[in-house]
Amino acid sequence: MTVTFKDVKADLLDQIARGVMAPGTLMPNEMDLAETYGCARATVNRAMRELADEGIVERKRKAGTRVRKAPIRQARFSIPIVREEIEAQGAEYRYALIDRTVAEVPDWLRGRLALTPGQQVVRVVCMHWADGMPYQHEERWINPEVVPSVLRADFSASGPNEWLLAEIPFSNAEISFMAVEATQDLADHMGCFAGNALFRTERTTWLRERAITLVRLTYRRGHRMTTKY
Amino acid sequence: MTVTFKDVKADLLDQIARGVMAPGTLMPNEMDLAETYGCARATVNRAMRELADEGIVERKRKAGTRVRKAPIRQARFSIPIVREEIEAQGAEYRYALIDRTVAEVPDWLRGRLALTPGQQVVRVVCMHWADGMPYQHEERWINPEVVPSVLRADFSASGPNEWLLAEIPFSNAEISFMAVEATQDLADHMGCFAGNALFRTERTTWLRERAITLVRLTYRRGHRMTTKY
Repeated sequence: MTVTFKDVKADLLDQIARGVMAPGTLMPNEMDLAETYGCARATVNRAMRELADEGIVERKRKAGTRVRKAPIRQARFSIPIVREEIEAQGAEYRYALIDRTVAEVPDWLRGRLALTPGQQVVRVVCMHWADGMPYQHEERWINPEVVPSVLRADFSASGPNEWLLAEIPFSNAEISFMAVEATQDLADHMGCFAGNALFRTERTTWLRERAITLVRLTYRRGHRMTTKY
Repeated sequence: MTVTFKDVKADLLDQIARGVMAPGTLMPNEMDLAETYGCARATVNRAMRELADEGIVERKRKAGTRVRKAPIRQARFSIPIVREEIEAQGAEYRYALIDRTVAEVPDWLRGRLALTPGQQVVRVVCMHWADGMPYQHEERWINPEVVPSVLRADFSASGPNEWLLAEIPFSNAEISFMAVEATQDLADHMGCFAGNALFRTERTTWLRERAITLVRLTYRRGHRMTTKY
């Protein structure tokens, strides 16, 4: 019976899983493995290539092949536009503006965004619904010194996220993930109880050293933000 | 007075910020800009190169340079080992094992990890402290079919995360971020009140189609997980 690359790969994987070859272990060279399995070297090579592609082993030109330690230590999250996120779930998107005001920048925000005392900011509060259920509550502050056109935008028909993306680019952003207890006001909008734990992302975007916006996106109770890596 | 690349860059940035050049706009070519600013083409080129490096404009060989729309839509999070995360903050790390049991896999977990009914799993509960304050509560299930050595590991001195990384590689993982309300037990460990909102990550790791572990990491109240992009 011919030994295929799948047989070789399965056996190597089994040895890795059983700890015969622990993370960091230098694997035998392809010639020796070919002899062990009684197959061509090309067969071993293909098995190794697939293990390398899957991030299980690491091949270095001169140092040989090792079982990887902690193969991947970074996860990537895409930052979606909420309308697209809801529509991708096959749900119907609905938008509602709750409040839009122009006021003097509050002290806490002035610090966060490095704004000038007394400067005006536009605050927008709105809701995003999926199939008639509250999905996300958005509270956002926009800096009209960087985006003067925001003073003319009323956000009655659509939200400030897509509007901003069409209006101005950003060069850097900071995003935080956290849990918050719903205030009574937030609970009323989200259809939950005050004190319930809600998942929130808070993001600031900048055009070089000038702050464009700070936004707090609070999701419905039970929301999970998931990614594979 | 000579026009420097910094002058050109600042002026272009100002036009972008003021919306004179909105996202998606095709920018004038370098020759024309050089004429406008009364400087060498190389000066304009350098300004453009920096704007491109900062993700503000996008240069395409034949299509010219455009102001970027929504420049970066992905954030990367590193998945730290909690000891390293705490030590990086300059705090003293302390570990405490709360419980380690071997038991039949509960139904909810069997579904999550595609395990066999009646199979044994190792459950480990432990705490990670920073400067004597509760930092992270860890609840983890490990599959001994994939990592048999876990049956001999007692986790009394150090946690299962680093142990697993040294024991077995993983080829893929799924991570979720969420908010949970603290149970009384969790509140007791974390030094908060039952019902408080806590930030949690839940992660499963796999060696191809075989589940290695599911872990729930719940952070102290007020924790923010932050990244720049």
